[in-house]
Amino acid sequence: MQPAPKRSQLPETVLANMRSTNELFSSEVVGKGNIDALDRIYTLNARILPPGAPMIEGRERIKAFWSQAIAAMGLTQAKLTTVDAEEASGSIVEIGRADLTLASGQSATVKYVVHWKQEDGVWKWNTDIWNANQ
Amino acid sequence: MQPAPKRSQLPETVLANMRSTNELFSSEVVGKGNIDALDRIYTLNARILPPGAPMIEGRERIKAFWSQAIAAMGLTQAKLTTVDAEEASGSIVEIGRADLTLASGQSATVKYVVHWKQEDGVWKWNTDIWNANQ
Repeated sequence: MQPAPKRSQLPETVLANMRSTNELFSSEVVGKGNIDALDRIYTLNARILPPGAPMIEGRERIKAFWSQAIAAMGLTQAKLTTVDAEEASGSIVEIGRADLTLASGQSATVKYVVHWKQEDGVWKWNTDIWNANQ
Repeated sequence: MQPAPKRSQLPETVLANMRSTNELFSSEVVGKGNIDALDRIYTLNARILPPGAPMIEGRERIKAFWSQAIAAMGLTQAKLTTVDAEEASGSIVEIGRADLTLASGQSATVKYVVHWKQEDGVWKWNTDIWNANQ
């Protein structure tokens, strides 16, 4: 549960806040089924991009998602570990959609989050994560 | 292909740079199989978090991934559309790992990227995307 960020120099007060937020998800939301604790975890206009479903916007809809998803998955425990965390000044966060065509003639839609950074004056993809809508 | 960011006020020069970078992926990497074009797309120390595989770090490894993945998927076309893009000052980008336990006794590992923002003085999850390692 202890974040061990590799690249950041985030202040300990911020890291402690992040640990508390992540811990709330484990102990309250998953551990006790306290869905209202998500008010202290997600921002009001937060977006989640779950695998196998389209993006969901807004805390109320996110609460409905987790309420259903935890039961459907039979999720009893979730331990969150920070691998890396960095202050994002001077960078860009993009949410996007990729429409893919395959040689088989099939198509697929993928959603992604890219964290952009400038390298030698050019904006490039620094973190790139995606999953399928279906 | 035209980014239509909802919340950002990114300068047109930045948006144009982003469009060019995304277009390179579609036209050069996927369209022509020009894997070296990834040098102009990913930063040197970029990380990708593909569904069904662990995180991959570094541009050279990312090039190897895409070289193999495009062939394996039979990917012939990828159209990227920006849904939202915002300057990330005052926010935090976290890469993390979630170790899940299910009621069935099974366990699973999920990797995630969370874009954190402060709301009423508390750091919260503003964008949350995840996928499975396997």
